[in-house]
Amino acid sequence: MREERIPSEKAITRDPFPASKKIYVDGKIHDIKVAMREISLHDTIVKLPSGKEKVEVNEPVTVYDTSGPYTDPNVEIDVRKGLSKLRQSWILDRGDVEQLESISSNYGQERLNDETLDHLRFEHLSKPYKAKKGKNVSQMHYAKKGIITPEMEYVAIRENQRLQEAKQMNMQHPGNSFGANTPIGEITPEFVRDEIAAGRAIIPNNINHPETEPMIIGRNFLVKINANIGNSATTSSIEEEVEKAVWATRWGADTIMDLSTGKNIHETREWIIRNTAVPVGTVPIYQALEKVNGKAEDLTWEIFRDTLIEQAEQGVDYFTIHAGVLLRYVPLTAKRITGIVSRGGSIMAKWCLAHHKENFLYTHFEEICEIMKAYDVAFSLGDGLRPGSLADANDEAQFGELKTLGELTKIAWKHDVQVIIEGPGHVPMHMIKENMDKQLRECYEAPFYTLGPLTTDIAPGYDHITSAIGAAQIGWYGTAMLCYVTPKEHLGLPNKKDVKDGVITYKIAAHAADLAKGHPGAQLRDNALSKARFEFRWRDQFNLSLDPDTAESFHDETLPAEGAKIAHFCSMCGPHFCSMKITQEVRDYADKIGSEGDDALQKGMEEKSQEFKEKGSEIYL
Amino acid sequence: MREERIPSEKAITRDPFPASKKIYVDGKIHDIKVAMREISLHDTIVKLPSGKEKVEVNEPVTVYDTSGPYTDPNVEIDVRKGLSKLRQSWILDRGDVEQLESISSNYGQERLNDETLDHLRFEHLSKPYKAKKGKNVSQMHYAKKGIITPEMEYVAIRENQRLQEAKQMNMQHPGNSFGANTPIGEITPEFVRDEIAAGRAIIPNNINHPETEPMIIGRNFLVKINANIGNSATTSSIEEEVEKAVWATRWGADTIMDLSTGKNIHETREWIIRNTAVPVGTVPIYQALEKVNGKAEDLTWEIFRDTLIEQAEQGVDYFTIHAGVLLRYVPLTAKRITGIVSRGGSIMAKWCLAHHKENFLYTHFEEICEIMKAYDVAFSLGDGLRPGSLADANDEAQFGELKTLGELTKIAWKHDVQVIIEGPGHVPMHMIKENMDKQLRECYEAPFYTLGPLTTDIAPGYDHITSAIGAAQIGWYGTAMLCYVTPKEHLGLPNKKDVKDGVITYKIAAHAADLAKGHPGAQLRDNALSKARFEFRWRDQFNLSLDPDTAESFHDETLPAEGAKIAHFCSMCGPHFCSMKITQEVRDYADKIGSEGDDALQKGMEEKSQEFKEKGSEIYL
Repeated sequence: MREERIPSEKAITRDPFPASKKIYVDGKIHDIKVAMREISLHDTIVKLPSGKEKVEVNEPVTVYDTSGPYTDPNVEIDVRKGLSKLRQSWILDRGDVEQLESISSNYGQERLNDETLDHLRFEHLSKPYKAKKGKNVSQMHYAKKGIITPEMEYVAIRENQRLQEAKQMNMQHPGNSFGANTPIGEITPEFVRDEIAAGRAIIPNNINHPETEPMIIGRNFLVKINANIGNSATTSSIEEEVEKAVWATRWGADTIMDLSTGKNIHETREWIIRNTAVPVGTVPIYQALEKVNGKAEDLTWEIFRDTLIEQAEQGVDYFTIHAGVLLRYVPLTAKRITGIVSRGGSIMAKWCLAHHKENFLYTHFEEICEIMKAYDVAFSLGDGLRPGSLADANDEAQFGELKTLGELTKIAWKHDVQVIIEGPGHVPMHMIKENMDKQLRECYEAPFYTLGPLTTDIAPGYDHITSAIGAAQIGWYGTAMLCYVTPKEHLGLPNKKDVKDGVITYKIAAHAADLAKGHPGAQLRDNALSKARFEFRWRDQFNLSLDPDTAESFHDETLPAEGAKIAHFCSMCGPHFCSMKITQEVRDYADKIGSEGDDALQKGMEEKSQEFKEKGSEIYL
Repeated sequence: MREERIPSEKAITRDPFPASKKIYVDGKIHDIKVAMREISLHDTIVKLPSGKEKVEVNEPVTVYDTSGPYTDPNVEIDVRKGLSKLRQSWILDRGDVEQLESISSNYGQERLNDETLDHLRFEHLSKPYKAKKGKNVSQMHYAKKGIITPEMEYVAIRENQRLQEAKQMNMQHPGNSFGANTPIGEITPEFVRDEIAAGRAIIPNNINHPETEPMIIGRNFLVKINANIGNSATTSSIEEEVEKAVWATRWGADTIMDLSTGKNIHETREWIIRNTAVPVGTVPIYQALEKVNGKAEDLTWEIFRDTLIEQAEQGVDYFTIHAGVLLRYVPLTAKRITGIVSRGGSIMAKWCLAHHKENFLYTHFEEICEIMKAYDVAFSLGDGLRPGSLADANDEAQFGELKTLGELTKIAWKHDVQVIIEGPGHVPMHMIKENMDKQLRECYEAPFYTLGPLTTDIAPGYDHITSAIGAAQIGWYGTAMLCYVTPKEHLGLPNKKDVKDGVITYKIAAHAADLAKGHPGAQLRDNALSKARFEFRWRDQFNLSLDPDTAESFHDETLPAEGAKIAHFCSMCGPHFCSMKITQEVRDYADKIGSEGDDALQKGMEEKSQEFKEKGSEIYL
C-alpha cells in the first residue's frame, strides 16, 4: 500500500514568488546574512486635471520569509545532499561541542547497520555533535551568561523586517497587547538575549540542525505558526513528506512538526531535517511506541531515553514531552465527553494505569533535561489532557496538568533548557482568555503554543476555520506560536492542498493577532496592499497577498483577459461604475475645499459642483 | 456573453439531508406549523467487562433549518409556480391590506408590458398587496399594539429548536453575553413581541413575500447570517441565481440579498422571491442607477421612489438605504487609503458632490418610511462610509455616519418601521468592540448587521476566513446578523462553490458567537457531535456536521472503505493505537475508584492496574 519513494529534485517546489527577490541583510555584531523577501511594486500614475500624468513611486515591501533557500533561484539545492549548513561555523566557533565518533543511540546504530534500508537512507549522513562534557550549548545558557550569539542577532534583524527603512505606508493603529512588551522602535540583539534569558522566548535550534535560519518564539515577537506533517502506517512516501515540509515553509510555516508513525520514521526524519531550513519538532513518544509495537504498557524509560538521543543526534529542534500527565489527573478525565484526545497524553495515561506508577517522563524529567542541554533541544511541554470538545474545555484535568507544566518549566530553566508550553484544543471563544491568563501566570511567561483552539465542534471539514477564529484571539492575548489545523482534522491525513490551506489560514490568524497587538510595522503590508487595491494595481495586489497564485486565479475566473489586470475597474461592478473611481473625485474635492479653509467651504462646494458637471462628471475618461 | 436561462426543475437542488427529516411543530396560539430539521442518531453500544453489550439510545438532535420546503421530499415544488404561500392567510386575516388592481410603479408596468421579456417572465405573477389607506402593516406596529402575530409565535417556536424537550447532552458552559438578555428557559411569543416593539429585533417579511418562513434578527436571538447573490452585467443567468438562492439557504443562509446589476434584474428578482422561503433584501439604489444608465448624478428622488415601490410590490423584505451619507461626511474620506468602498455609499457621495445638495435619501426619509410601512419592508440602514481597509477603520467619516443612522432609526421607529443597522467592513480585532459598543449606544439597540469585519487586508482569496475571525467576535459582542464574505471577495463574483464556502464559514462564525454568548441550547449539537466522534459513530459525526457531504468525502479520501465508517479507529492513528479507546479504559478505572471512595483510592488503583494487565490491557479486542 505504501510506497517508499525517496525524494527527487523534480518533486520539490522551487519557484520563486512573483515580483519578489531574496535579499540578505548583514549583521552588525556577527558576520551573518539574514534572509528576507522583497516584493517590488509598480508606480502609481495619477491623471492630473491638466491632463498630465504624475508618477508616484511605490517602495518595495519587505516581508518575513520562511521559505528558506528554495525560493532563491541563485542557490543550488540537491535534496540528496541536503541544504547548506548556515550555522555550522557559528556552532563550532563557540568551542563547546565535539563531533562524536558515531551515533550514540542503540536504535540509530541498528538502523544504520541494516542493509535492507540502504535504498532509503539519506546519503550524506554526517556524524553528530554533542556538548563537550560539562558544557551546556543552549541559547538560554548563553543568554544568561550575557552572550549575544549569531542566532540572537539573526532573529533580531529578521523580526525587524527592515521596518526602520520603510518610509511609506507605515501608518498603524495603536494596538492592545494585554501586557506584552514589544519595543516600539526596533528589536535589538540585546532585547532578544534578555527575553531568552528570562525564558519569555526561545530560539529552537539543535546543534545537529545547522541548516536552520534562526527564528524566535515569544510573546514579544511576531506570532509564529507550526505545520504538522508526517506519514502514517498507511499513507504517503518519504518524497511526499519532504515536499510537504518544503511546501509548508513556502507558504509560511515557521516550524514544522514531523508526526510520522509506522515504519521508517527514522529515515523519513533524516530526509526532512537535512532539507528543512526551519526548526523541526517531534513527539518522541510516538516513535518509542512503534518500538514496542504499539503497546503503551511496554514502554520503558530506557527505550524513551534512547529515542530522545536518537532524535537529538539527527537534529530535532524541539520535543513534545507529555510529562504533566500525572496519575492523579487521569481519573479527572473520566466524566468528559471526549476523554483524552492527545495521542501522547493517552499513551502516558495508559502506561500510568497499566503500571499504577507515576508517569516516567515526570519522574525522569531532570535526566531528560541533561539530554536536551547537550544538543540544545527545546521542550515543548505537551498538554496531554487538553480538551477534545467544547464541553471538556478548561476543566480540572486540563488546568491541573497546566500547573504541573509550570513546575516543570522551573526545573528545565534550572538546567538552562528552553521551554514552550502547549495549549488547547477545543474552547468556546469566551473561555479562551482564561487559558492565556492562567498559562502566563502559572508557567512564568514561558511562551504558549496552542492548537487552535477550535471554537465549535460542529464543522468537521472546516476545522481550519473553526480554529483560526480561536487562534487569532489567543494569539492576540499573548500566545507565541499557533499550531495549524487543516481541513482534514478529525477526518483524515492532510494532503498538499490541506497543508497549504492550513498554513495560509494560520498566517491569517497570526497576522490578525500581530495587528491587534500593535506589533511594530505589522500593518505595513496591509496598507500597501490596500493602496494597490484602491489604485487598481491588480498585479501588486496579487503579489502582496499571502497566496498570489490563488488571488490571481480567482480574479481570472471572472475576468480572464490580461487587459483586465490593468483595467481601472473590477468584475464586481463592471466598467460603468466604480466606487474606487469616485473616491478620487472626493479627494480632489476635499483638496480644493481644504485649501480654501472652512469659511470658504460653502462657496467651494458650489464651485466644485459646477466644475464637476462641466467636466462630464468623470475623472478617468 | 450572458445567457438568460430561466429556471428548470433540474437545476434546483432538492436532496434531503442525510438521516434527517423535516418536522413541523404546532403553534399554541395560532394554527401554524414551524419547520425544523431532526437528525436521527445511531445507538451507542458499550461492551461490558462481562462480554455483554449494553445499548444506549442517542436522542435525535433538532437543528434550526433555513432550507425551506426544498429539503422536504413530501413537498412538491414547481419553480415556475413558486413556493406555496405559507403566510397568505395570516396576512389577509388581519384585514388591513388590499389587493391592488395592478402594479403601482411605472417601471414595473413598463416591464410587464414589454413583450420582448415574455420569455423571461415569471409565469404566475399575482397582483400585489398594500396596506389599506391609513393602515400600518409592520410587525413593529402590531407589537407596539400588544398583538402577537402568527409570525411572532412562529419565530419563538423556531428559535427554541425544541430545546425544552431535549433530555440528553444539554450540558453547556455559562456564556458572556456583554449585556444581551436572552431568556434562559424558553423564548416565548410575548418575549418576541416585546423585543420587536422595543426595536431590538425585527421580523423581515413583506406582505408580498408570503412564501417566507418567519425568522427574527436581534441580539437576544440566535445570530443570523446573510448571503449575497446576484448576477452582473457580464455573468450568470436567472436560472443560476435562483439555484444560488436555494443553495445558499440549503447551507444555512437566514436571509439572502439579491445584488444583481445589469439588464433584467426586475425579472431575476421576481424568480428569486417567488422561490425563496427566507427574507430577501436588496439595495434599491443599484437598480435606480441602472435606470439612469449608470450616471449617479442623474438619479432623482422620483426614480428612486418608483424603484422602492416596484421592489416592495415584488416582495423584497428589507432595503439597504444609504441615507446616512451626508454631504459633510464625504470630504472626511479624502485622506483614507481606500476612500469610499461601499457601492451605494459612493453612488450617493457622487450625487451629493455633483449637485452640491444633501443626500436625497436623507431629505426624503419620512416619505420612504411611508412606503416601508405600507408593505412592511424593513430598513437596513446602509453604512456607505464603511472602511475598505484596516487603515481606514473607526474613523470620523464612519462614526459620523453611524450617528446619523441612529437619528434615522428614531424617525423610522416613529413610523413603526423596522430597522437594522449595517456595519463594517475592515477592522483589526482590537478595534471591533468599539464598533459594537458605539452602535448599541448611538442606534438605541437596533440590531446590528455587519460585513465581516475583515481582520487583515493581506489575504485576497481567503477573505471568508479573514472576515470570519472578525464576524465571530462581533457576533459574540452583540451583532444580530453577519453578512457573509466569500473567497472571491475583492477578486470576482462568487460561483456556487464560493457561495457554499461563504455560508458554511459564516454559520461557523455565528454559531461560535452563540456559544460564547451562552445562547440556551447552543452547545447541544456540539456535544452530540463530540460524543459521536468519541464513540466512532462516523455516520453520526458526518450527519450532525454543518456540511455532511464534505465531512464524509474528506474521511473517504484516506479510508474509503465502508467498513472504516463503523471501525473503532480512524486514519490518524491507525488500527493499533487509539487515544479514544484508552479513554474508555480510564472511565472504567475511574468508576471503580469512584465507587470505593477516596480512602480506597490507593488500593483500588493497585487492583485495577493488576486487573488491567490480566485482561490484556485492551477493552475492544
